[in-house]
Amino acid sequence: MEQNTGEQISANAPAPDAQAARQAGEHIRKNFASDNVAPVCPEILAAIGEANVGAAPSYGADPWTAGLKARVAEIFETDAAVFPVTTGTASNGLALSALCPPWGAVLCDESAHIDNEECGAPEFYTHGAKLRPLPSADGRIDPALLARALNGHADRGFHLSKLSALSVTQATEWGATYSLEHLREVTDLARGAGLGVHMDGARFSNALAHLGCSPADMTWRAGVDILSLGATKNGALAAEALIVFDPVRAVEMERRIKRAGHVWSKQRFLSAQLLAWFADDLWLRNARNANDMASRLARGLLRQPGATLPYAIESNEVFVVLPEPLVQGLEQAGYDFYRWTTPPGVEGVLIRLVTRYDTTPDDIDGLLASLSAVA
Amino acid sequence: MEQNTGEQISANAPAPDAQAARQAGEHIRKNFASDNVAPVCPEILAAIGEANVGAAPSYGADPWTAGLKARVAEIFETDAAVFPVTTGTASNGLALSALCPPWGAVLCDESAHIDNEECGAPEFYTHGAKLRPLPSADGRIDPALLARALNGHADRGFHLSKLSALSVTQATEWGATYSLEHLREVTDLARGAGLGVHMDGARFSNALAHLGCSPADMTWRAGVDILSLGATKNGALAAEALIVFDPVRAVEMERRIKRAGHVWSKQRFLSAQLLAWFADDLWLRNARNANDMASRLARGLLRQPGATLPYAIESNEVFVVLPEPLVQGLEQAGYDFYRWTTPPGVEGVLIRLVTRYDTTPDDIDGLLASLSAVA
Amino acid sequence: MEQNTGEQISANAPAPDAQAARQAGEHIRKNFASDNVAPVCPEILAAIGEANVGAAPSYGADPWTAGLKARVAEIFETDAAVFPVTTGTASNGLALSALCPPWGAVLCDESAHIDNEECGAPEFYTHGAKLRPLPSADGRIDPALLARALNGHADRGFHLSKLSALSVTQATEWGATYSLEHLREVTDLARGAGLGVHMDGARFSNALAHLGCSPADMTWRAGVDILSLGATKNGALAAEALIVFDPVRAVEMERRIKRAGHVWSKQRFLSAQLLAWFADDLWLRNARNANDMASRLARGLLRQPGATLPYAIESNEVFVVLPEPLVQGLEQAGYDFYRWTTPPGVEGVLIRLVTRYDTTPDDIDGLLASLSAVA
Amino acid sequence: MEQNTGEQISANAPAPDAQAARQAGEHIRKNFASDNVAPVCPEILAAIGEANVGAAPSYGADPWTAGLKARVAEIFETDAAVFPVTTGTASNGLALSALCPPWGAVLCDESAHIDNEECGAPEFYTHGAKLRPLPSADGRIDPALLARALNGHADRGFHLSKLSALSVTQATEWGATYSLEHLREVTDLARGAGLGVHMDGARFSNALAHLGCSPADMTWRAGVDILSLGATKNGALAAEALIVFDPVRAVEMERRIKRAGHVWSKQRFLSAQLLAWFADDLWLRNARNANDMASRLARGLLRQPGATLPYAIESNEVFVVLPEPLVQGLEQAGYDFYRWTTPPGVEGVLIRLVTRYDTTPDDIDGLLASLSAVA
Repeated sequence: MEQNTGEQISANAPAPDAQAARQAGEHIRKNFASDNVAPVCPEILAAIGEANVGAAPSYGADPWTAGLKARVAEIFETDAAVFPVTTGTASNGLALSALCPPWGAVLCDESAHIDNEECGAPEFYTHGAKLRPLPSADGRIDPALLARALNGHADRGFHLSKLSALSVTQATEWGATYSLEHLREVTDLARGAGLGVHMDGARFSNALAHLGCSPADMTWRAGVDILSLGATKNGALAAEALIVFDPVRAVEMERRIKRAGHVWSKQRFLSAQLLAWFADDLWLRNARNANDMASRLARGLLRQPGATLPYAIESNEVFVVLPEPLVQGLEQAGYDFYRWTTPPGVEGVLIRLVTRYDTTPDDIDGLLASLSAVA
Repeated sequence: MEQNTGEQISANAPAPDAQAARQAGEHIRKNFASDNVAPVCPEILAAIGEANVGAAPSYGADPWTAGLKARVAEIFETDAAVFPVTTGTASNGLALSALCPPWGAVLCDESAHIDNEECGAPEFYTHGAKLRPLPSADGRIDPALLARALNGHADRGFHLSKLSALSVTQATEWGATYSLEHLREVTDLARGAGLGVHMDGARFSNALAHLGCSPADMTWRAGVDILSLGATKNGALAAEALIVFDPVRAVEMERRIKRAGHVWSKQRFLSAQLLAWFADDLWLRNARNANDMASRLARGLLRQPGATLPYAIESNEVFVVLPEPLVQGLEQAGYDFYRWTTPPGVEGVLIRLVTRYDTTPDDIDGLLASLSAVA
Repeated sequence: MEQNTGEQISANAPAPDAQAARQAGEHIRKNFASDNVAPVCPEILAAIGEANVGAAPSYGADPWTAGLKARVAEIFETDAAVFPVTTGTASNGLALSALCPPWGAVLCDESAHIDNEECGAPEFYTHGAKLRPLPSADGRIDPALLARALNGHADRGFHLSKLSALSVTQATEWGATYSLEHLREVTDLARGAGLGVHMDGARFSNALAHLGCSPADMTWRAGVDILSLGATKNGALAAEALIVFDPVRAVEMERRIKRAGHVWSKQRFLSAQLLAWFADDLWLRNARNANDMASRLARGLLRQPGATLPYAIESNEVFVVLPEPLVQGLEQAGYDFYRWTTPPGVEGVLIRLVTRYDTTPDDIDGLLASLSAVA
Repeated sequence: MEQNTGEQISANAPAPDAQAARQAGEHIRKNFASDNVAPVCPEILAAIGEANVGAAPSYGADPWTAGLKARVAEIFETDAAVFPVTTGTASNGLALSALCPPWGAVLCDESAHIDNEECGAPEFYTHGAKLRPLPSADGRIDPALLARALNGHADRGFHLSKLSALSVTQATEWGATYSLEHLREVTDLARGAGLGVHMDGARFSNALAHLGCSPADMTWRAGVDILSLGATKNGALAAEALIVFDPVRAVEMERRIKRAGHVWSKQRFLSAQLLAWFADDLWLRNARNANDMASRLARGLLRQPGATLPYAIESNEVFVVLPEPLVQGLEQAGYDFYRWTTPPGVEGVLIRLVTRYDTTPDDIDGLLASLSAVA
């Protein structure tokens, strides 16, 4: 399977008025397009309202941001530098800029969001570093290919962009999750060759819920230097945490963020979202529901004649190859999802179905029933 | 008066827990540090809650964003391209990148936020363009100095960075407001020399309320190509509208925004803030209150022996020179504000007092009473 | 065959004194490391001396540079913009910066010098555009793979870097040469999809001598927008001509060059080299000799048992797989050349032998005799 | 006196053929436009010819480059890193990129070449750092103004571009030369505030000849971290030495140079120029002649009624204010020079006359005689 074709702008956006918007709301039960079509989860919306009291120092000097740093230290069992930002693309770009000089190169998977879905944001933030994608079966870096890419590059001298960072995606773009052993194997190779390690954790909580390990085990104890931790796909309004485990990498990060226009003047509203997301394990509860719904969906699809699931279901994305008539049938039944690029040689159509923190068993069963009805 | 020393991180941020935060809330009546220490105004917070229904297409294909474009067209009486973004720094950087090539230069006032408070964001977004500050009395570009800067630059050939844009700030960093005549005089000069015109409108609504003219009159009819329209300082959570009047300048703006990581996946929550801000003239009502409170404050200060107001009060900022003991007295009375760089030769201390959409006459009278008590 | 491992810094550079340097001169007959280890050809050195008379306007306003523009117009049968620069890396970077915006992507061959040997210069000059390498058999873009890469990219919206340029290398890094038909096939595909076309002509003269066509036929008539024409590898001291056939692409090129520090103050000495190179067909005579010597070498190698030539010999590079003992034997006999990355599964060692304008039949026969003696 | 208007492209460039060029050669005796209109001095041209023997390793691994490093160590009495490049603009940009991060700022004089004549090259190389010009009487940084600019900047936090480097020009753009005491005073201030120090030495040899001190005294012993040492204006074909005294600043400089396309494949011809320039004190002999001719010219001008020399004559540039009829008279007599921007309030016309390594007493006396004839 070759390349992630991404989340295109939906062609059938609802009409631009509030009533149409509310009608669109009714269709949420049939929307499997992405985790970011969801509304904000109630706890996080409430936290924004609770933060809306009184004056607060601007630009991150507020108590919510200070509280966030303490909370992350607790959860990740280490004194990391934490920078709340708005989007995963910004978080990834900032992280890579701290790991890779302008004349450097970043190794990543060929399906990586940073190389396929961010319109060159890593190149913008790093001032022109190169991404070097490696092929893989399911978005997880193959240690043998990584070793080969690393081998001998140091002897090439200044003609070659300097390999400076490895970026791994956990969970991957295909819904697979690195085991801790796999993760450590690739980070060991990278660090042994002098590279820093970035983790794109847009669906970090889903992977964490799947593995059942600690946040520390899946990050700095496994050789990760910087984590882009995403909350927006899992219930937040717009909130990501850039977490830098290696203090040297955090130097001047505020200036990197400021000059990109990513420091909120009213930053309390960014930090408050993340605090609510961490409170009472909301992040994990949300992730577990999304993962469970994906498993329920996958089990149902496997019972469907003609359906093939090319990837392991280890987070909240389900890729499935279905015969064209079934795909059309789902579309006609009002379901929203993306057709992916079907690999050459595969019969049928590859589609992606994403489950969310607010997906219910009824939503899943409804889709499966629709599919059976079409078939 | 020489240079804006900016909004430093407050040294006495409250302790990082919710109770302390609530206590800090009580001090809001004495906080004149900035317009962005304020909470979100209730109408905008409510609009965020109302937008939180159902699924919405991500990345700007939602009905709120479509509605915003229609609303802006109505308000500005023209079919402009509109891009909601999170911060004024991003909005300014994006605007300048569409007006000035990497080898170009932007003329601006020496007090301009883009040159003094954004840690090089314009240079980041333009890929290295140069800012050329011009001196002024109160942040408004002097037509004579502008003419002189423009004169003859075209003959200098490729050794010189190409003068490509003029950036004006309305209202200025010192609280003054360009008249329409003044504005047109400088934009005519700039456009006559082939430059594009950007308006930093972080306090656009305050200037608009002061002049009482139409948004169209203060922008494209006055020769402005791109407006960075700020809502955050005037009641929003985090929302600015980048408005491009010249369609040629809007080409590929989405890609500029995307690669900077400034496209929200759940963009409805960005657009909904702006829709609420425009609804029922909220933006103007908020601005009028802030302006009125600044005038009330200024009138009171002028009655205070030893106080000097170096600038016209034409928006919501009051700069005042006070004897050091009075400034200390205010600080000891619990008031929050910034000490500015006092120009050489001036006796006393220059401080900045900012009024807001939620400042009340009692707040003003309280400060004036404290000042009298100290004096 | 997978990836060009480039021209590493030679480990055995001669000692840093003039005598040693002169001794190194004696070894020139055994040096097949690269075309750029050669001295300047006498006609070009003489032209530099002849230009060294009197005062000349600086920064390109000299008569040699004006003469160069006229000469190029004559040779290429069109009124192109011509910019003499020092290195091929600068010329390529400048060309791509005029074809591809910072948020764009350039399609090229996986062996391309721009992606493998220039330490990210294209990314530097374009301010962060992405290179998208396509696999090939011998460095020539495969039309089918190109068509697939182009297909559907326009529908992806702003998440995807915009495909903006195709870069072809003529002759390729593996010594093969595009036929005019092949060239037009790929440029037609690219232009049909809205991309500009760049030709890296570091060995343009060798390809031209091989094909025997006109410079116009191999460039703008074949759909090329910008040519990086290299003279340094074929006899010049340090001189390349950046030739822009599409006048729109040449706008502000002087400023691009100036801000990169590539405008010579005494530019007459750059232009004079190129004028001499074009005079009396020197460029083609030099190229023909280098090509002929490569053919002679290839014919000899094919008679050598155990030797395999993986690529067509269509310029002045000869790649050959030899048994390790033979490679060592050549090294011990004092020959200078590069060991390349031998593709997996291939027995023996891949080496590169480069012939030059000053390579003689005796040099070739000497190497072949040494090889026979070792075998 | 306000701003250097630079070296414009001469409008009356000779016609583009060899004969016209030779005629232009005859006018060299009347050309005072710039030091870079001169031909290459014979010793350097000869050295290029002498280097043109045999094969040499490419990209700087040649013995000439190794010899250059040894020679610089000897001359500067320290083991500096040395990188030969083609132009002063490249050298300055590279130096600043090693001293100042993208979010940083460089303090320089308002007349500095880096801010006025390089089309944003420092911004290109630093990826968007800001230049902060300081006013001065004659291009030499005023310690009091420097101290004021440095004062308090560290407390401003991340909103402000980080002051990272000071760039001084020796000799200045106005022909004045820093004394060692003045130099040390400003570098002490800069270093005390954590800034690195760059010296733009386009006319370093002229300043050195004027002061009569050692190269070490005028650089690293005076607090300079990186020197851009120019030879092109003083006899070379195209050669500048980037000399890095602080080894930490030299890390990855090769990659910075390579990705800018400034590594020559035949670098021996770059290093050979510099070796010849240093040999037998050629650089100082050339500089002394140029300086002496400037002094002779200045003495003559002072005898001319109506002439005013606004700056000290401490290198090879003579700025003089003359009545318009005299300036026109010189032009009509065939003299070549630049009219500068005459400061407001000054009567007459400010022109610049530059003397060179090959200027003769007869040239000077001829100009003075012409002037007397006109007057």
